[in-house]
Amino acid sequence: MAAQPPRLRGVLSPVLTPFTNDLEPDPGRFVQHCRWLLDSGVGLAVFGTNSEANSLSVAERLNLLDVLLAAGIDPARLMPGTGCCALPDTVELTKKAVGSGCAGVLMLPPFYYKNASDDGLFRSYSEVIQRVGDGRLRVYLYHIPPVAQVPLSLALIERLLGEYPGTIAGIKDSSGDWNNTAAMLHRFQSDGFDVFCGSEVFLLQTLRGGGAGCITATGNVNPAAIVELYESWQQPGADERQAALTATRREFEIMPMIVSMKAAIAWQRNDEQWHNVRPPLMNAPAGKAVLLREALTQRGFAMPGV
Amino acid sequence: MAAQPPRLRGVLSPVLTPFTNDLEPDPGRFVQHCRWLLDSGVGLAVFGTNSEANSLSVAERLNLLDVLLAAGIDPARLMPGTGCCALPDTVELTKKAVGSGCAGVLMLPPFYYKNASDDGLFRSYSEVIQRVGDGRLRVYLYHIPPVAQVPLSLALIERLLGEYPGTIAGIKDSSGDWNNTAAMLHRFQSDGFDVFCGSEVFLLQTLRGGGAGCITATGNVNPAAIVELYESWQQPGADERQAALTATRREFEIMPMIVSMKAAIAWQRNDEQWHNVRPPLMNAPAGKAVLLREALTQRGFAMPGV
Repeated sequence: MAAQPPRLRGVLSPVLTPFTNDLEPDPGRFVQHCRWLLDSGVGLAVFGTNSEANSLSVAERLNLLDVLLAAGIDPARLMPGTGCCALPDTVELTKKAVGSGCAGVLMLPPFYYKNASDDGLFRSYSEVIQRVGDGRLRVYLYHIPPVAQVPLSLALIERLLGEYPGTIAGIKDSSGDWNNTAAMLHRFQSDGFDVFCGSEVFLLQTLRGGGAGCITATGNVNPAAIVELYESWQQPGADERQAALTATRREFEIMPMIVSMKAAIAWQRNDEQWHNVRPPLMNAPAGKAVLLREALTQRGFAMPGV
Repeated sequence: MAAQPPRLRGVLSPVLTPFTNDLEPDPGRFVQHCRWLLDSGVGLAVFGTNSEANSLSVAERLNLLDVLLAAGIDPARLMPGTGCCALPDTVELTKKAVGSGCAGVLMLPPFYYKNASDDGLFRSYSEVIQRVGDGRLRVYLYHIPPVAQVPLSLALIERLLGEYPGTIAGIKDSSGDWNNTAAMLHRFQSDGFDVFCGSEVFLLQTLRGGGAGCITATGNVNPAAIVELYESWQQPGADERQAALTATRREFEIMPMIVSMKAAIAWQRNDEQWHNVRPPLMNAPAGKAVLLREALTQRGFAMPGV
């Protein structure tokens, strides 16, 4: 059994999933984008919300992970999303990730049934951890109530940490609520529980609070500047660098973030295929793609080396 | 190619999925329950919300459908739920249902990504219909905003009906909002679009408005009385029969509906295994199961022949 990779820190990105014109995942462009992210210093939270992972079948996710490994991508830089609605799907994806040597997994709670109790969510995570049954497993909880509509309470996290110390390794907080991130940092940071904010908007605050970094959509398009703040947050000018990051991110909000980011890559790579998204999303309308390009150009935005 | 079965009408139930103590689907109890429902006059909307279908993998759903067909269950009585988050999953389940001669499918929109546009949802349904590519396909849209958090607007329905007449066959309205059901009945009932309310609480109103029937959780446990109202809604005493149905349903709301219904069957069949639910649900606590039993006993509730 391989040794456990070092704990993940810093900037990770939910890697965008490129699709062919037939809406099939495109392995070549996927590997190319992952390599560019790694070269930019960004870890690979493949199969996250912004990866359209919930628009992929389990078989498609397994295959894309195999593609990355076959391409020589280091699994120590990988934190695949594995949380599905159905227990057997989550178990299968998690087993595969751990067995492949991934540094951790990012695990949504089952998200179809709403108003789940803490008991029920504890049971969900427990069943997965026990069925996977591998000491190398590191679970990063995924708290994203605006999308999943199934929040993870502080009481639940405390209970999971108490029952599975070492296995429950941290959380991605995509609540968009700094007070919640602050509460997690205050309450759990000393327990070997790594808090990642879910947007670089909160990166400086998170690092000042002792957090591990951020897992952020715009890591796909603006990695160098985000990594720069991560590496220099204790140096002069950090607040200004944070403000610039935040302003750039706001430009992407002209459309759903996934659509905007794919439009930016299509532009920078001069590759129309990068626009493709699966339903229920729609490819960027030409008019909005132009507005995005103009706004980003004004900010001096570029993706060197893509 | 087999002929298309007659259109479904009347009372259907999202069939509860029994699980073993290891949380595996239990084919024997599933077939037994389906036969009992059919004998009670209730059609089989297998793999609905109350079936914990979203806690089942695609492979588990395919296998359970095969089990039913192998047991001789008439596919003309089947309306399997096939709508998943991922397009290929929805296509696979829908193809299987149509190819098996099922009378229709009940199709959730992709439900992970919120704030989907009408364009995006139209695209979702279109892609499925075109990829299935079978003239026998009848899609019943599944509008259940309290759970899926992705509503289907009247404008979307109109557009789908215009583009795919005959294929878009109706809707299950689980909004819990009678005004919405009434609007659908008013606007679409004459277009060969069958409106089913999502709870027997609205059955009489739906039938008076020209609707096709109901697809209701409590069809699993109280089928005879619901079918009786469906068959006698134009006869004297219908309002009283409706009131009695509604009062019985309310008793089940002591716990999440799925948990209560499984507790009722466990009691009536004297079969503890029927309690089992997958996470994020929890089996009925003993105390609440007793309260439910007492309340139902006071109403003279029974499940004859289970």
